[in-house]
Amino acid sequence: MNMQPTIEVVEVSPRDGFQSICEPIETQKKISIIEDLVSAGCKRVEIGSFVNPKAVPQMADTSLIAQHFGGRKDFRALALVPNLKGFERALENDVKEMAYVFSASDTHNQKNVGCSTKDSIEALKVLIKTYHSEKDISLRVSIGTAFDCPYQGRILLDRLRSVVSEVLETSDDVEIALCDTTGRATPFQVENAFLEFIKENEARSTRWAFHGHDTYGLGIANAFFAYRSGVRIFDSSAGGLGGCPFAPGASGNIATEDLVYSFEKSGIKTGVEFKSLLDVADVISELPGGKTASHLRLLPRDRLF
Amino acid sequence: MNMQPTIEVVEVSPRDGFQSICEPIETQKKISIIEDLVSAGCKRVEIGSFVNPKAVPQMADTSLIAQHFGGRKDFRALALVPNLKGFERALENDVKEMAYVFSASDTHNQKNVGCSTKDSIEALKVLIKTYHSEKDISLRVSIGTAFDCPYQGRILLDRLRSVVSEVLETSDDVEIALCDTTGRATPFQVENAFLEFIKENEARSTRWAFHGHDTYGLGIANAFFAYRSGVRIFDSSAGGLGGCPFAPGASGNIATEDLVYSFEKSGIKTGVEFKSLLDVADVISELPGGKTASHLRLLPRDRLF
Repeated sequence: MNMQPTIEVVEVSPRDGFQSICEPIETQKKISIIEDLVSAGCKRVEIGSFVNPKAVPQMADTSLIAQHFGGRKDFRALALVPNLKGFERALENDVKEMAYVFSASDTHNQKNVGCSTKDSIEALKVLIKTYHSEKDISLRVSIGTAFDCPYQGRILLDRLRSVVSEVLETSDDVEIALCDTTGRATPFQVENAFLEFIKENEARSTRWAFHGHDTYGLGIANAFFAYRSGVRIFDSSAGGLGGCPFAPGASGNIATEDLVYSFEKSGIKTGVEFKSLLDVADVISELPGGKTASHLRLLPRDRLF
Repeated sequence: MNMQPTIEVVEVSPRDGFQSICEPIETQKKISIIEDLVSAGCKRVEIGSFVNPKAVPQMADTSLIAQHFGGRKDFRALALVPNLKGFERALENDVKEMAYVFSASDTHNQKNVGCSTKDSIEALKVLIKTYHSEKDISLRVSIGTAFDCPYQGRILLDRLRSVVSEVLETSDDVEIALCDTTGRATPFQVENAFLEFIKENEARSTRWAFHGHDTYGLGIANAFFAYRSGVRIFDSSAGGLGGCPFAPGASGNIATEDLVYSFEKSGIKTGVEFKSLLDVADVISELPGGKTASHLRLLPRDRLF
């Protein structure tokens, strides 16, 4: 287990965050916020998603954003794709990193991407077979409702394990993000899942990531328990903006400022410059219709440094 | 190490919470809230503190509250005492459990109780020698700024160890609470301290408690890391009310509802009835001048059950 005191932060506010805002945000404003995030040290940013614009109109301009950032070397632009069509659109728009998303819960997968979990995995197999020769493409598989589902409740470890196994049968060379879509995962649940999966697959080159929400106040605790079990890649959203349009009540990603502060305070480097990040979080918090939530942003600044 | 899935919650809102409110609260109101907390399943409640009423006028009616609850068998009434004089006043007012408080940081101890850490420990020795034959008295030693001080910054583990050792030289039969007064302790710091102290003193009958604040969003993470290292007694405050008048910026105890929810969700029993607790937290949140903060209280109730 790699215990070096460093984590990688994947900033998801331009996707998981902005999709939670119903009022339109100008594409130029999104681009400007992404630039600010990159300037603050975010080396990997989820810039949007290639989903059906009728279902999620907030993400309709992802191709424009992707084209703008195409070829940039100073950060890794990640885009969410729910299916082969989305993957191909991402590819056409010069995206090099795709997060293929589906849910461990069948019900949530139906509501979120319109098919069963099994069908999503089958489509992933086709995708990998079709595009495995594209050497400069990096694939993440984001497994939503990995721990808990708004419709089905707690997801058992055995169910999650079988989903993870099917993904790993398709390819070793992926990053797997276990996503606590509802924010109701608990620390020992998160720790147990990652401990087992990392151990069971230590011969593979799989990278493991945790995507948490802070809706029930467990985001940071879950992140630290994921770290304990070997996870070094963490999704978070500046300002704590976030939520899934098809997971009722799933608000509030872990705020990047909370994540960065608590890990840096623990001697674990994040690469993110805290003061600049707070400034971006302030900008995000002022977006009309956005609901931000973080512990750190609203504290007096003189108590943070 | 006792890994049975149960924790004991020490409800501190009537002390750590109410002392943070500058506007006066009627004694009868305090008593009524304590009754509601007991009804919600809080089996141990810090009802007030025997401190100098000129320094902390909010606690001036502790003797009246203590007399009211004297002899009650349905819960354990705990009172904070900063010195021998406070201890004796508690004793006179029928209190059977005292939390003797001092700080690991000299500077904070000077500001909080008016003497050096060494002098506080000397006074504790006299106290224990004088009253060791009082068999029905239960003593807790609450070590403030155990991890971090608003004036001195981080408290090193060696410093804390020497303070803990001196306390344990005076008596085995105590409960030691390590208090994160500022809320700036970090999960691994909390875990390391408890792991070491519990291991070093496993031959003793010492009980270990964690008193956390959520000011920087680390309260629940720290509590779970304390649990991991063997701690089974946790202080928290309904509504997340709290703070130390002599620790600038130290607001927000861990909210009892957050603690209870996250441990119960993890399969760890707390004995507290969650719905009733939320009702008390609502009452507390309406106290004029009180600043409450919790994740759970403000969520729609239909998402909590």
